[in-house]
Amino acid sequence: MNGAESLVETLLESGVDTVFANPGTSEMHFVAALDRRPEMRCILCLFEGGASGAADGYYRMSGKVAATLLHLAPGFGNAFANLHNARKAQSGVVNIMGEHASYHLRHESPLKGDTMGISQAVSHWTRVSQDAVQVAGDGAAAVTAARSLNGQVATLILPANTAWEEAVASEVAAAPPALRRPANAAIAAAAQALRRPGAALMVDGAALHSDLSLTAARIARATGARLMAPFFAARTRRGAGTPRMQRLVYEIDGNVALMADIGTLVLCGAARPTAFFAYPGKPSLAEAPGTAVLELCAIDMDIGWTLQALAEACGAGEVVLTAQDLVPLILPELPTGALNLDKIGAAIAHLMPQDTVVVNEAVTSGAPVAIATATARPHDLLVTMGGAIGDGLPTAVGVAVACPERKVVALSGDGSAMYTLQSLWTMAREGLDVTVVIFANHVYRILHGELAAVGAKAGRNVARMFDMVEPQLDWVALAKGHGVEAVRCVTTDEFVAAFGRAMTRRGPMLIAVEC
Amino acid sequence: MNGAESLVETLLESGVDTVFANPGTSEMHFVAALDRRPEMRCILCLFEGGASGAADGYYRMSGKVAATLLHLAPGFGNAFANLHNARKAQSGVVNIMGEHASYHLRHESPLKGDTMGISQAVSHWTRVSQDAVQVAGDGAAAVTAARSLNGQVATLILPANTAWEEAVASEVAAAPPALRRPANAAIAAAAQALRRPGAALMVDGAALHSDLSLTAARIARATGARLMAPFFAARTRRGAGTPRMQRLVYEIDGNVALMADIGTLVLCGAARPTAFFAYPGKPSLAEAPGTAVLELCAIDMDIGWTLQALAEACGAGEVVLTAQDLVPLILPELPTGALNLDKIGAAIAHLMPQDTVVVNEAVTSGAPVAIATATARPHDLLVTMGGAIGDGLPTAVGVAVACPERKVVALSGDGSAMYTLQSLWTMAREGLDVTVVIFANHVYRILHGELAAVGAKAGRNVARMFDMVEPQLDWVALAKGHGVEAVRCVTTDEFVAAFGRAMTRRGPMLIAVEC
Repeated sequence: MNGAESLVETLLESGVDTVFANPGTSEMHFVAALDRRPEMRCILCLFEGGASGAADGYYRMSGKVAATLLHLAPGFGNAFANLHNARKAQSGVVNIMGEHASYHLRHESPLKGDTMGISQAVSHWTRVSQDAVQVAGDGAAAVTAARSLNGQVATLILPANTAWEEAVASEVAAAPPALRRPANAAIAAAAQALRRPGAALMVDGAALHSDLSLTAARIARATGARLMAPFFAARTRRGAGTPRMQRLVYEIDGNVALMADIGTLVLCGAARPTAFFAYPGKPSLAEAPGTAVLELCAIDMDIGWTLQALAEACGAGEVVLTAQDLVPLILPELPTGALNLDKIGAAIAHLMPQDTVVVNEAVTSGAPVAIATATARPHDLLVTMGGAIGDGLPTAVGVAVACPERKVVALSGDGSAMYTLQSLWTMAREGLDVTVVIFANHVYRILHGELAAVGAKAGRNVARMFDMVEPQLDWVALAKGHGVEAVRCVTTDEFVAAFGRAMTRRGPMLIAVEC
Repeated sequence: MNGAESLVETLLESGVDTVFANPGTSEMHFVAALDRRPEMRCILCLFEGGASGAADGYYRMSGKVAATLLHLAPGFGNAFANLHNARKAQSGVVNIMGEHASYHLRHESPLKGDTMGISQAVSHWTRVSQDAVQVAGDGAAAVTAARSLNGQVATLILPANTAWEEAVASEVAAAPPALRRPANAAIAAAAQALRRPGAALMVDGAALHSDLSLTAARIARATGARLMAPFFAARTRRGAGTPRMQRLVYEIDGNVALMADIGTLVLCGAARPTAFFAYPGKPSLAEAPGTAVLELCAIDMDIGWTLQALAEACGAGEVVLTAQDLVPLILPELPTGALNLDKIGAAIAHLMPQDTVVVNEAVTSGAPVAIATATARPHDLLVTMGGAIGDGLPTAVGVAVACPERKVVALSGDGSAMYTLQSLWTMAREGLDVTVVIFANHVYRILHGELAAVGAKAGRNVARMFDMVEPQLDWVALAKGHGVEAVRCVTTDEFVAAFGRAMTRRGPMLIAVEC
């Protein structure tokens, strides 16, 4: 058994059985070891950003850590943006990054780069294997790290000689350390605070997509506090039957207004609401200056235990939720007439089946869909967590691998989708049941908005940098090139027909809407 | 004048008039400042890797520093791989990376990331502007850094508040510091060494694409030394009338054989020949163990002065080169019959006009083209310098912007081209005269070779990771989707007709060859 083989065994015995891969010359022994264990599912992505984004989506829906296989330094660089997004989503990921043989590093070869530096710029945990015998232990430690603190990005750098030299045995990843919990006094103080007028409870993490959301709703009901959720959430269970929550919005001005009358804000698994970006004369934080903020449970703490304890302290254990606490099922009518974004939202809400997973990275065009689907059949919503565009299609790949029985709908602006369009090929290769909706507005609409927000007007250079015209992208051709069936829609009837068909068939399909 | 405006002025006054841009929300004031100065050419790339690769190609052909405009942390990550390639090519590049307003960084926002860490992992020079008044000086220092030591990657991190706050004036970049030169004694020792039997002179940098190549040839003629060049060179002037040089090959075994009888190796602007990668039981260095290696002039020293001084010391100043010293013009016949890679090489060599710039990142399929074009009409050859695939198309964009009067031919494997295929759109948008030849073999052929090199056989998981079949990529559709005319060729006649037509028209065209 060589080091690479000991690592593959370690991953499998530790429950990591999926690798999103874009291998390079530095990982050949690891590739050979993977080849000997066909029970490891190897999914090829034609660009490393597809691999890291897929691992993110896979973790968000399965709670399972996947591995990525990345080429040294620049290959990891290509994965960086979606590892940033995964980090912000608290997705557990194990990256296996190749590296030159340790004795080769003293020489100047083309691919020599700062593997440690780029890993540490985004990973929570980085280790370089020092010899083949230690590779199994290092791999097990990486898996444990990825599962720690509610999910982390862990990177194991594997010098080629540690892969090909003799190893002894595999190891099994240890359980992650217990999560930190707030003190009882803090629980009691929070319970008291939530009963004050103008109190709000903001939850995140598992409280947005598991039964913990019902616990949070009971606490709100028992205390009279408002129940809130952040705008960016890694996974939200939405639609009919889920607890009503007030969600923040994208713009800081809107959040300042929403939070103006909150006297006490209790954060449970949620970060303090912050502006996406700073603007001249606008605040960085959304809460009013006088608001008391209780950070009861940080995002890397035990939110499940905390919410249960808080529910007890609030006497919320016996609260029975009523229809008032839950989102009703309200499906919009199927739209007709001239196509616009609201009608796209209505059609999607009307047609998408229960348990659809919506991956929405269409920040501007996707907003009407989010509104229309708020009362649709229950579904999951995943959004870009780190603000780095180009994660929608890769995330959808990982979601579809994690949930083969569920329909996946990926919404993307054309600008965002262009970053990682290679993911379309992986959808075709793996026969993934993803319906991709591209809002082909031929413009970086969000940038026009941000430019207006800083008070500037657009001239020639702005047009040259913000508008994707001359030529326009042809999304039907792009999809066809990747082996994915596609259709372009300019009328409402076309969209309803295309999306309806996509919902009743399996396999990848791309719908480009222009309106 | 705000900080952003002072930076745009500084760049223009310092001779930086081209920006390869993929702007994001953190750079809006810089975008607004660019908009006020239409004489700054802003070229939109639909992915940051396209911008950094274009800046690399632009510098290699023009010797001029271009700027890139990149989004903070993850946006820079997307540019990382081609910045790695640019670094290895010694291309001078100034990256302008946005950043949160400095006072916003204490909060946890989605896009907050380790901007300094990722920059330092690839840049020679990194600076964070501390306030608006210093931005102009910082920008001037970045330009100087990019022009120093024969070309460097310089990154200026621009917190948003330093862009929007009041500045005073622009600055002009100072001249870079003088390059280091070898001592006279070292020149004399090298001159003596080159007269020994079995001596070789290996040159790189400007000695491969300027009149310095003739100086090197005179030295070789005067001393009897072999004249050699590395396999990876940022820019090589090749073909008829250029000095004969013995070029290294890709594989370490081949280089060991080529260099076995070299007793003394004098390196002038060239790095010590190193294996691309380490392999079990094979050496890292190519020279024979007993070879004396004289590192006369490091790659960041004054190669022009050094070669002239060496020529004088060798009495080579009066040497008149004859036909024997220069590559003759030998054009292969136009091929017919069944298509193969040799015939593609012959057709390209026969048809490409003088002064074509060939960007060849097709490491496996491109080799026959390199052989066939060795005696073609004089042209320039650019290859991937850092081993990070996905730089061919972006580099071609930069080359075509730098040399609008020259035909550019970009050769790429399908696996490589998929990394940064968005560059096709920029070619169409800017009307760049690039003929892209895609070797659509539907496989990462180099990886199959590397796997064989480590002694492994390919099974199912290898096939799943190395082969791009089920589905095959449709390059004609991919090109059409980006607005580029394309044709697929499976016969020699089709390729000759398509490539011949591409050589006589202007504008981008893609030719996908399957053989």
